[in-house]
Amino acid sequence: MTRYEMLADDIARSIDTGVLRPGDRLPSVRQASASREISPSTVFQAYYLLEARGLIRARDRSGYYVTGTAPRLPPEPENLPQPTATAAALEISERVFDVLESTLRRDLVPLGSAFPSPLLFPLPRLAQVMASSVQKLDPWSSVDDLSPGNARLRRQIALRYLIDGLHVHTDDIVITNGALEALNLCLMAVTRPGDAVVVESPTFYTALQSLERIGLHAIEVQTHPREGIDLAALESALTRHRPKACWLMTNFQNPLGSLMPDHKKRDLVELLARHDVPLIEDDVYGELYFGSKRPTPAKAFDRHGLVMHCSSFSKCLAPGYRIGWAAPGRFARTVARHKLTTTLTTSAPAQAALAAYLEKGGYDRHLRHLRQALSAQQRDVMQAVARHFPPGTCATRPDGGYFLWIELPDGIDALDLHQRALSHGISIAPGRIFTSHPRFANCFRLNYGHPWDADIEQAIATLGKLATVGNRA
Amino acid sequence: MTRYEMLADDIARSIDTGVLRPGDRLPSVRQASASREISPSTVFQAYYLLEARGLIRARDRSGYYVTGTAPRLPPEPENLPQPTATAAALEISERVFDVLESTLRRDLVPLGSAFPSPLLFPLPRLAQVMASSVQKLDPWSSVDDLSPGNARLRRQIALRYLIDGLHVHTDDIVITNGALEALNLCLMAVTRPGDAVVVESPTFYTALQSLERIGLHAIEVQTHPREGIDLAALESALTRHRPKACWLMTNFQNPLGSLMPDHKKRDLVELLARHDVPLIEDDVYGELYFGSKRPTPAKAFDRHGLVMHCSSFSKCLAPGYRIGWAAPGRFARTVARHKLTTTLTTSAPAQAALAAYLEKGGYDRHLRHLRQALSAQQRDVMQAVARHFPPGTCATRPDGGYFLWIELPDGIDALDLHQRALSHGISIAPGRIFTSHPRFANCFRLNYGHPWDADIEQAIATLGKLATVGNRA
Repeated sequence: MTRYEMLADDIARSIDTGVLRPGDRLPSVRQASASREISPSTVFQAYYLLEARGLIRARDRSGYYVTGTAPRLPPEPENLPQPTATAAALEISERVFDVLESTLRRDLVPLGSAFPSPLLFPLPRLAQVMASSVQKLDPWSSVDDLSPGNARLRRQIALRYLIDGLHVHTDDIVITNGALEALNLCLMAVTRPGDAVVVESPTFYTALQSLERIGLHAIEVQTHPREGIDLAALESALTRHRPKACWLMTNFQNPLGSLMPDHKKRDLVELLARHDVPLIEDDVYGELYFGSKRPTPAKAFDRHGLVMHCSSFSKCLAPGYRIGWAAPGRFARTVARHKLTTTLTTSAPAQAALAAYLEKGGYDRHLRHLRQALSAQQRDVMQAVARHFPPGTCATRPDGGYFLWIELPDGIDALDLHQRALSHGISIAPGRIFTSHPRFANCFRLNYGHPWDADIEQAIATLGKLATVGNRA
Repeated sequence: MTRYEMLADDIARSIDTGVLRPGDRLPSVRQASASREISPSTVFQAYYLLEARGLIRARDRSGYYVTGTAPRLPPEPENLPQPTATAAALEISERVFDVLESTLRRDLVPLGSAFPSPLLFPLPRLAQVMASSVQKLDPWSSVDDLSPGNARLRRQIALRYLIDGLHVHTDDIVITNGALEALNLCLMAVTRPGDAVVVESPTFYTALQSLERIGLHAIEVQTHPREGIDLAALESALTRHRPKACWLMTNFQNPLGSLMPDHKKRDLVELLARHDVPLIEDDVYGELYFGSKRPTPAKAFDRHGLVMHCSSFSKCLAPGYRIGWAAPGRFARTVARHKLTTTLTTSAPAQAALAAYLEKGGYDRHLRHLRQALSAQQRDVMQAVARHFPPGTCATRPDGGYFLWIELPDGIDALDLHQRALSHGISIAPGRIFTSHPRFANCFRLNYGHPWDADIEQAIATLGKLATVGNRA
């Protein structure tokens, strides 16, 4: 246990035992730092953690206060029902697109949106950096930055890998138009039309759409709401279907928010190596952790170049810039070549701007604020769900990202709830779009990536009421 | 005939008949405008045209001078050999990539490059516009500008279609990461793996690579070096192979530089309509014409929504920004949806910057300068080819774009020439990469998109010498 976790635990115990009571002010950071003989930043980290757990809350310029006893939260869902073990050709796109189009409407409370609020990002600072870097842009960058991409940016990404303990060579990184292109290029590098590919169940709907678009079959494998894909179920799928790839989200999976523990990631990588199946690791939410350190990518355990790690800056720094990347291990050259024949290269000014931003520093400070904001928003949304939803409602408790997975009591149809919510100016993302099987009818994904306000509170109350009425009908 | 064409013709006749002699100074624009009672811009257009034909030349601040009699040019190639009428699965990528990697090297004289010199573009002005527009960028643009893309930019593109006589609705335009993504999305919208697709022969190598990547078969159809694809050969291919699409470059085809006359475009569109085969029209070079007006896209003749017009700003305004688009007719919705599942959307700052640039005006002025530069560069390169290459060498005479197609005397292998040229610091693009058949061994594509200088002159002299030596060997 780290120092700040110890401090947080001590304070939590004081709250539990009534030494600190609701409304009490905590020692200031300076006081706590002096009395414990630890650095102020350690105290800050402990306070962040307690705030993320909902035990204390900052008030502007006056310090941290105890919020009360641990808030009432909805229970977590148990194991999810098992998917049928078939490799189905996909025909889900139409349904998904209809739902998605509604979740993009700006006039709706965006609980069904796939994106966090753009207001959480340092957009003015990014604009400033871009304004300056585009004016210094070498005219030849349009040739030099052809795939695999801007060398300065690739170096910055390699440096961040290094901080997280991964050794990825600059030349093995391919810059892409967001993580989605990276994932698609990796998929093309290791499959041919007609092949089978393993995904989680439920899974990110765009994974299913991508497989459908290029004529691949999806094998949906049982996934635990807290710990990710079930390795026994995966092993049997590997034997039975001989898939050519797995496309998994190891950290804060969309839509569940599940996080694979390190030992499970290690087992996953070893299992896939035994079957010689590449892992396409979608890690776009990894930086949005609420705990003490970034969760390790499965790629950290890879000794065969079989893990193709994909991520981007779209969810954690620069939405709309469309800068992502793949670190595709032994497939790096193939991926770079596919990139050349699909979109040729990635916007040079955007690549240069992000390289300059990362070089200047400040990214980690922004990330700390972002994590704190998301964690606080999760707490508020979760508590509202507990207040307003019918008994029997469960919700996952992700340690990062900005999605909750809500399981309504049996018999409530979330697609129907989605339709009724739309007429109240609210979007949700019904469970059925996350699978090609007839599953998750009573589930939906809830986005907590928008700053908490009265509209969101009201929308959750309305949703809860609609779900309760639906239940009675 | 327009006024300026009439003026140009009058002057050309004066040169032919010896009224104006080499070294003579033409009347100043002001004089000619006054004496003819026409506007100065009409005189300018006439002088540009004469300069493009190599008859006169501007000297800094002192006016236009007669260059002499029409320069010696290499003869144009006759009909190209007919391709084998088979639909072959493709395996050309490796060969092409090896050649392409060499053409990207900045230390080589880029006669094999696919790009014009970035110095021909208004990059400082673009940077200024981007610097200002990114700072005004609505934070919600990352959501609002999702496919089909930035509405202001789509409107500007629709306005340009309108100027060219095409009525394309703003909502039927999909912004893409360059024209290459547009072409690939259109291809995906109308084909399934295993289908056949018609391309020109020779064709843009990336078309062949794209077909190969997604499991399509290429039918290469005979193409005339001046007038584009042979319609009789196309008709027989349509009947025989029942292709699901044609991917053609109607204006200044890469690599030939051919331009389909309007009547032929009309026949093409009608022929394809009879067979209900969509045309994917790659029109990235259309703005780079040397004549009096932009060549019409085939889409102008389309009455069934079957023509999917694709273009970009990469070759005529903003290399490296990666902004292209598709106007896919009746397939617009499908293309927009495929875009959402492949790269989601296109860089928001780059879209906003180009929208702002186009709104501010100045694009047409830039295009006039660009065309003039390319036309002058073509003349210089062509004359150098005539001076230095072995007898029997032919070259196409495109009315636009920045590629010449060179046909060497039989027995000279251009792939071998390419290898030997590399060791002299010169790249070319050998003919074999533009086909999946064993053809065009004695041909190569020559890029004249770089400002004429001693290095280029020297490189062409060296190439000519190497080709002559190769001939003797």
